Amino acid sequence: MTGLTTTAWDRRDQLSYAIVGTGALGGFYGSRLQASGCEVHFLLHRDYEHVRVHGLQIESPIHSLQLPQVNAYANVADMPACDVVVVALKTTQNHLLPDLIPPIIKPNGIVLVLQNGLGGEDQVAAIVGSDRVMGGLCFISANKIGLGRIRHIDYGTVKLADYASGYIPQGITPRMIRIGADFEQAGIPIVLAPDLLQTRWEKLVWNIPFNGLSVVLNATTDQIMQDPLTRQLAQHVMEEVVAGAAACGRILSETIVADMLARTEKMAPYRTSMKVDYECCRPLEVEAIVGYPLHQAQQAGTHLLRIEMLYTVLTALDRQNRAT
Amino acid sequence: MTGLTTTAWDRRDQLSYAIVGTGALGGFYGSRLQASGCEVHFLLHRDYEHVRVHGLQIESPIHSLQLPQVNAYANVADMPACDVVVVALKTTQNHLLPDLIPPIIKPNGIVLVLQNGLGGEDQVAAIVGSDRVMGGLCFISANKIGLGRIRHIDYGTVKLADYASGYIPQGITPRMIRIGADFEQAGIPIVLAPDLLQTRWEKLVWNIPFNGLSVVLNATTDQIMQDPLTRQLAQHVMEEVVAGAAACGRILSETIVADMLARTEKMAPYRTSMKVDYECCRPLEVEAIVGYPLHQAQQAGTHLLRIEMLYTVLTALDRQNRAT
Repeated sequence: MTGLTTTAWDRRDQLSYAIVGTGALGGFYGSRLQASGCEVHFLLHRDYEHVRVHGLQIESPIHSLQLPQVNAYANVADMPACDVVVVALKTTQNHLLPDLIPPIIKPNGIVLVLQNGLGGEDQVAAIVGSDRVMGGLCFISANKIGLGRIRHIDYGTVKLADYASGYIPQGITPRMIRIGADFEQAGIPIVLAPDLLQTRWEKLVWNIPFNGLSVVLNATTDQIMQDPLTRQLAQHVMEEVVAGAAACGRILSETIVADMLARTEKMAPYRTSMKVDYECCRPLEVEAIVGYPLHQAQQAGTHLLRIEMLYTVLTALDRQNRAT
Repeated sequence: MTGLTTTAWDRRDQLSYAIVGTGALGGFYGSRLQASGCEVHFLLHRDYEHVRVHGLQIESPIHSLQLPQVNAYANVADMPACDVVVVALKTTQNHLLPDLIPPIIKPNGIVLVLQNGLGGEDQVAAIVGSDRVMGGLCFISANKIGLGRIRHIDYGTVKLADYASGYIPQGITPRMIRIGADFEQAGIPIVLAPDLLQTRWEKLVWNIPFNGLSVVLNATTDQIMQDPLTRQLAQHVMEEVVAGAAACGRILSETIVADMLARTEKMAPYRTSMKVDYECCRPLEVEAIVGYPLHQAQQAGTHLLRIEMLYTVLTALDRQNRAT
């Protein structure tokens, strides 16, 4: 047995990867893995015909890639079962996962959820079982700019953390080390984190205010930071996220808000992914990034008034935007 | 002495009215007063040339008016001093008042502030003295639809309440009765209110949530009411206004929120004045309707988190909108 759900794994066995959702994220990481020698299978939708013929192209200031030939599929029925199913869809597509994952996962394979926000692992666990799920948080700036063409702008680190039912911290597991090694060999900076829920809440401290407010205020990160009032609002929302994490049993660093504000101040002007989605009239990841964390905090008895208001406004704007 | 600042007034003396700001509000009420026989002088800006030649026209489902000749002025220097100066400018123009009011008010004349929100009377009192100010709250749906042309859609009641420094309740004063009588004779429904601050806070219970959210959510009143989440947000904001009023020493009716929600539910779909201003890229009355009440409550030690957030978002959207 070399299955990732057991501890009996052998580093000399090659892992095969299925990329579910070949957008900016899935295309970027999948291409890197393939270029480093991994067996990778890409599930595509709109880009299928183009990528089948022309492959994938990554423009990057660090390391551009031209993959003239990739294993491209329009349908999971045509894909081989893989060791690692990488879920790189937007969370707004998660209703498709019960149909997409089972046909392409090996009996001992696992699912790596490379999604934003909170709740993705719970949804996947309901499909494949809670011992076959791992979380991955991507710190990357990249966009799809054409059929099979991805522009990598900056960053790229993936934080891996293992999942178990109830988000019980798993520490650094062998399968994290195994998958992390493949990513590192592919030139992807990897951080192994012992507590998935803690890690996800930490990322939410940035994602909830800046994704949310970028849509509501029609602003880039630098614009939010420049206006003292909106900067203060972002800070207050960040503090509410820290309170939400605490309600869910995760105590974040005392300096996380100040640190993130300082880092955001130094960032190049940035259009958040939610703002990009909004402008393209695509569904917003409101539930994963704002709704799910909010409701977890509410169930734990903590009311986050600003995030609640942000959620209501984003939900309404999203509905309106989808209708146009 | 027949001055309104004294109690020695005589009903048989005719009062003269100066209308500062001949938009939907000033045009509507001024025309009604003139049609009923009052001496009225209109200060105009963009419409001056047209109105000087063609007069004013009110289209109304109740009582249309055609006034081919009115006393029109482009400059306060040309206007006679009047007994009642009616301030019907948007509050965003209040920086002009120190230049506009003094030349056109009689030594014993008063200023009637027919504006939205809170703070207008304080600003006027700083110009003419606190014993020469009265508040008027307009419950009317009307738009300017062309040069000198106003469309009256519905309602029209004016609530009059007298002002004193610190908003000390004045009860029903003789000069309120006197001016109210002129308005009633002009067919304008009048309510005399004993406590201006209470009356202004009551109106804010509707104006803060529905004006504010109509801009943030890009929605009409019926759309805000239809979505359970945005309706609930409106209700929570209303409850914060009630708390703000209490912090400022005014206890509003226990049923005011429920009453206003029920009334709003029955209203025809309505685009609030702030939404209309936003769509026309005009400055928003954020300070008068949201900022001033918020800061009054804050100074009284009460923090209204949702209204604070609404204020921040509106301020940013307003700045952005003015720049376009």
